Amino acid sequence: MTESRIAGLDRSLRQRALKVVPGGMYGHMRVAGLPEGYPQFFARGEGCYLWDVDGRKYLDFMCSWGPVVLGHRHPKVDEAARRQMEQGDCLNGPSERMVELAERLVGLVTHADWAMFSKNGTDATTTCVTLARGATGKRKIVLASGAYHGAVPWCSPYPYGVTSEDRVHAIYIKYNDIASLEAAVAQAGNDLAAILVSAFRHDYGQHQELPDPAFARRARSLADANDAALILDDVRAGFRLTLHGSWDPIGVQPDLSAWSKAIANGYALAAVMGNERFRQAASQLYATGSFWCGATSMAAALATIDVLETANGPEHMRLMGQRLRDGVAAQAARHGVAIRQSGPAQMPSILFEDDADYAKGSRFVLEALKRGVYLHPKHNMFLSLAHTAADIDLALSVTDEAFGVIAKLQ
Amino acid sequence: MTESRIAGLDRSLRQRALKVVPGGMYGHMRVAGLPEGYPQFFARGEGCYLWDVDGRKYLDFMCSWGPVVLGHRHPKVDEAARRQMEQGDCLNGPSERMVELAERLVGLVTHADWAMFSKNGTDATTTCVTLARGATGKRKIVLASGAYHGAVPWCSPYPYGVTSEDRVHAIYIKYNDIASLEAAVAQAGNDLAAILVSAFRHDYGQHQELPDPAFARRARSLADANDAALILDDVRAGFRLTLHGSWDPIGVQPDLSAWSKAIANGYALAAVMGNERFRQAASQLYATGSFWCGATSMAAALATIDVLETANGPEHMRLMGQRLRDGVAAQAARHGVAIRQSGPAQMPSILFEDDADYAKGSRFVLEALKRGVYLHPKHNMFLSLAHTAADIDLALSVTDEAFGVIAKLQ
Repeated sequence: MTESRIAGLDRSLRQRALKVVPGGMYGHMRVAGLPEGYPQFFARGEGCYLWDVDGRKYLDFMCSWGPVVLGHRHPKVDEAARRQMEQGDCLNGPSERMVELAERLVGLVTHADWAMFSKNGTDATTTCVTLARGATGKRKIVLASGAYHGAVPWCSPYPYGVTSEDRVHAIYIKYNDIASLEAAVAQAGNDLAAILVSAFRHDYGQHQELPDPAFARRARSLADANDAALILDDVRAGFRLTLHGSWDPIGVQPDLSAWSKAIANGYALAAVMGNERFRQAASQLYATGSFWCGATSMAAALATIDVLETANGPEHMRLMGQRLRDGVAAQAARHGVAIRQSGPAQMPSILFEDDADYAKGSRFVLEALKRGVYLHPKHNMFLSLAHTAADIDLALSVTDEAFGVIAKLQ
Repeated sequence: MTESRIAGLDRSLRQRALKVVPGGMYGHMRVAGLPEGYPQFFARGEGCYLWDVDGRKYLDFMCSWGPVVLGHRHPKVDEAARRQMEQGDCLNGPSERMVELAERLVGLVTHADWAMFSKNGTDATTTCVTLARGATGKRKIVLASGAYHGAVPWCSPYPYGVTSEDRVHAIYIKYNDIASLEAAVAQAGNDLAAILVSAFRHDYGQHQELPDPAFARRARSLADANDAALILDDVRAGFRLTLHGSWDPIGVQPDLSAWSKAIANGYALAAVMGNERFRQAASQLYATGSFWCGATSMAAALATIDVLETANGPEHMRLMGQRLRDGVAAQAARHGVAIRQSGPAQMPSILFEDDADYAKGSRFVLEALKRGVYLHPKHNMFLSLAHTAADIDLALSVTDEAFGVIAKLQ
């Protein structure tokens, strides 16, 4: 780490953290995977801007890796949370907010007849898988290799401490590949509990892929034919593409869906939703956690959904994401730099061609960072309702300079 | 459910919930396991009191099933949380609070050289087990049958949707039973990854048992002899019995410990702490979640720990718990009702003798509930720093009447 790029407090916090936190930081927020110069520690956020601990301001295109869907510290959400905090958050049972939120979600998400709440996306995906096994009395789970469904032994992308038995009932397919899906289902035979799919392919460091409607329909028909559950992992995409479930626009409804990230604009909450077919099974599953009925995050979710719906948040994010994408595409062409943009406009990915080691991408985002725009070289990024056309144009003025640097290197 | 016992809003919320929440409610906060008359939905809390949605006030001995260790809505904790919320909670990386909290915990918890954070107790126990397997390259986990370590397939007390492979590497012992511990370790052979123990035996519906120091020492020596981890599950007991780790008073230090519940007075937070031996392994484990770096709950934890330390919270809770226990014992004797109280005074259990179906216990707590005291017939209860001698005496005036009812039934 070059000293000039890491200013005082971030540097001293890293040194302190090395003593009391394994590796100085862990998980997806560890900056080891980012170019040198990225801050590790943050002080505050507001709208689509955030500040690191050394006071540097960034126009943010990560949105806390997804949760911040309205912008940081949205006043209506924070006010709802504050009001609930003044009554109580974690009590001896749920509050009225839980019923209100479940009703709201059932009214909004097409396939949902019921909802349950937890704290992590991994809680939600694990509950879906366990529920599918309990309901069907079967064991095999068909899922895409490389897909991220959480960070516990049955699904972690880095299988440290994982035993072979943790995944003995997993059968892997290629996302969007019907032949591999059919082969996996055949392999499962009469032991198929579920087909688990992401809303779209958003594997780390790869080009994103929207779901092929034929693949989605085949997943649905195979689940039906085998009395298995179709589980949609909407943890990352949910409420950014549509408020009705990410496969709703292609007309394919899952039996169970897993939600988290954007559901409460950064307050810790996750949800499982399901249809009538799995209601009885869901009432038999023992799924619980100390803070799962916390009323504050549910009040925040209710406010988040209200704002998203009133403002047509997904459409605004799509327009802003498209404005960014169009501008970036024009700049790349003008500078003669080959890139590929992929995924939904609300969750853009920008990868450079001929960049297997991400060297170009890393330099590009670092040049943007120096100019106050926070991008990611490998992971998909996120738009929020707080991003305006002016913010996008500001970002584009910066990416234009960053492309200029890359062009000179070629 | 008799209509007279469930008032208007609680009843209507149950009816609404039945439509949109599986079974109307799920997990440990579902009142199905409690006598008819217990409220399902709560409106607010303050100190050691809470109110249900119909405005009925209770002197609370469940403390949200553990998290509320200072009393509901402690002003210093809520103020720290509010201040942090005004800066930012869920950002693109951790805040300074994470380093401060890890430093604070390492300074306080005897065995801890580092800390990592998550959201659920189950996150923490799962991380410990996975970490032990990664660090040792071995697979077997020795744990007590009937012990609660979370609600996911490897450990859930209700194995719906669980496959045999989820537990193929678990070897069960009897808590405090050295012979069964030694036999399990022998059975694991050279594949022992960890011995996982609760701070004390607090199995649902059973008499509680403090750890036998000889058992604790044997667990430590067997872990050492087999190059395995000793994991202490301090999720339920941590910060109520001592601030230094629940086995610190008996002089046995674990390698890894799991924490949650009381760590932030109700704000959603969990932690894994570990010693030098496991630091490198912990830096290799991919453990992460969308909200795990949330600064608000960490600010709340820092405030919670300050208040607990300044007020000597564990000692206050012990004194209040002992006052309750002594009073209850005297009343039971006076009324000629045979009961057994067990566990640490801060986490009391009151079970009736000759009460296999919990009928006496259920009637007893219902009589207390009607008089405004919230007790539990099967699960251990919890004291908080907010309970004063006057509150305990108020509770005792109620339990005296409740014992009178039980005495007449005999």
